Amino acid sequence: MAPIAVSLGDPAGIGPEIVAKAWRERESRALPRFFCVGDARALEKAWRGPIATISDPREVADCFDRALPLFAVENSADTVHGKPCIEGARCALDALELAVGLARSSTASAVVTGPVAKAQLYKIGFSHAGQTEFIAERCGVARENTAMMLAGPGLRTVPITIHVPLRDVPAILTIDLVVAAGRTAARGLTRNFGIARPRLVFAGLNPHAGEYGALGREEIEVIAPAIAQLRDDGIDADGPFAADTMFHAAARETYDCAMCMYHDQALIPLKTLHFDEGVNLTLGLPIVRTAPDHGTAFDIAGTGSANPGAMIAAIGLAAYCVRRRAEAAIPAA
Amino acid sequence: MAPIAVSLGDPAGIGPEIVAKAWRERESRALPRFFCVGDARALEKAWRGPIATISDPREVADCFDRALPLFAVENSADTVHGKPCIEGARCALDALELAVGLARSSTASAVVTGPVAKAQLYKIGFSHAGQTEFIAERCGVARENTAMMLAGPGLRTVPITIHVPLRDVPAILTIDLVVAAGRTAARGLTRNFGIARPRLVFAGLNPHAGEYGALGREEIEVIAPAIAQLRDDGIDADGPFAADTMFHAAARETYDCAMCMYHDQALIPLKTLHFDEGVNLTLGLPIVRTAPDHGTAFDIAGTGSANPGAMIAAIGLAAYCVRRRAEAAIPAA
Repeated sequence: MAPIAVSLGDPAGIGPEIVAKAWRERESRALPRFFCVGDARALEKAWRGPIATISDPREVADCFDRALPLFAVENSADTVHGKPCIEGARCALDALELAVGLARSSTASAVVTGPVAKAQLYKIGFSHAGQTEFIAERCGVARENTAMMLAGPGLRTVPITIHVPLRDVPAILTIDLVVAAGRTAARGLTRNFGIARPRLVFAGLNPHAGEYGALGREEIEVIAPAIAQLRDDGIDADGPFAADTMFHAAARETYDCAMCMYHDQALIPLKTLHFDEGVNLTLGLPIVRTAPDHGTAFDIAGTGSANPGAMIAAIGLAAYCVRRRAEAAIPAA
Repeated sequence: MAPIAVSLGDPAGIGPEIVAKAWRERESRALPRFFCVGDARALEKAWRGPIATISDPREVADCFDRALPLFAVENSADTVHGKPCIEGARCALDALELAVGLARSSTASAVVTGPVAKAQLYKIGFSHAGQTEFIAERCGVARENTAMMLAGPGLRTVPITIHVPLRDVPAILTIDLVVAAGRTAARGLTRNFGIARPRLVFAGLNPHAGEYGALGREEIEVIAPAIAQLRDDGIDADGPFAADTMFHAAARETYDCAMCMYHDQALIPLKTLHFDEGVNLTLGLPIVRTAPDHGTAFDIAGTGSANPGAMIAAIGLAAYCVRRRAEAAIPAA
């Protein structure tokens, strides 16, 4: 397996620190070989351990055991922890582009993206909503054919609407959108997790899943018809269920992925259960892409206190998905 | 302490079974003396153990150790498990009214309400949204001066809007509503839990708490101004915070109650963590009122499989709150 490319994200954030800490725990956490892509000075400020500068991912095999491999990307400023700047954002974007390119060419087996600051990226003309949209475009995949999955040890969720004001959610939710997300999730679970017939459960939008229309009609008019379409496609889809009853331990045993109608419906249970180990996995891409499910944490950058749990989980999950995809590609004898 | 009155709820539901199971576990769970109020035949169908029919709560002290005390309320039908009927609903309502009256007169120290079927109650002319509104009216308290708190061993939440379609939530949320809920919660935490200066944290409505207005403006226009007003009142109020970051173990250590903007924002974390032990506590009433945080479960009524955890927790919390109120009523020497 080729090594995994890990972009450091914004050099003023905790990205460099958590990638270095992940490397430090590579043996105890059984991590696959990876290399980081980004600002050398930011990494050196965050990490006093050994670094091996590489210019080709094939060098990783030789140095990974003794040093954190770094594919350096120039940052024209000397970025300070906690002080994001546009030069740092440009460096983060260059690192992302390089990491994705290496994964696209199979020089890297997957890409894991460190956290970036969207406000900074927008200042340098970045026209995508986030890293996911950028990667989808670079892969030639329409955004609506991808889905964001949040994965923790005991729960996977997909928010069907994501970064939109809550008041806009009911108007955005359509049968087509819910069906598309269900298809992407089902395919993604098979492809990345090796689940032959994934069990999807859909949350309602309203309290008590609308209580037969008394507390809202989106369940009747949108979600239930979408579930019916997915079942017609042969997908194991169930619901809509009252969202508050879906995430306790016994309920979680009954499905492979909870399909949620809005951001917090998916993220509240995931982060309540798995705050320091939540991974964002993009479904629908030709490459494997994961990310730790947290931001740049500028407020604690440079203090050495960042928890690398989610980065470690993101690297581990990327390797897991790469292996599942490779197994699926081997024709049965 | 006078015994606690526990209404059995709808006789076709799991109420009678879980109250009887709670009595069975009275010693191991250190429950205070209580008596149930409701349909004798439904209780006998759900429970083969000893029952002591009483006509005055003062009889409870003598019989509680050997039998489940029952204050019988007539049901003109022979209600069958899982088959709600209007006669059963009428019996449930009569039981609720009697239990509340006993608590109002201090003959009972608190009231715990078993689950009812709102659809059945509406058929007999019940004009309140639910039991909480009925009890508030019987206590002479305006609904807007009460609040619903969900309490589990490690989390308390208050949903500021409750049983409304999600699409209506942004229009209902006003500064006044958020302030009123904050005041009721702060007073309620002091009165029922003995917390001198309760720490309230407020969730945002939108993803990432609106991300400085980019993902919604309710945080800026409604929630933050309400928090400022509460602080001016001397209440320890903080936020608005991204809802998905508020409920992991370390975050829960930092506050006494999470103030949530809508039903599922409060109920998802509570039931994810404490599915079988969540209690609904009504704040703002002159009496102590709790309820198990689940419904009638008609689908499993009569099977003997109902989990009494939440009913046990509701009785236990009611007794806890009664003791805290009694302590507060004793002037310091």
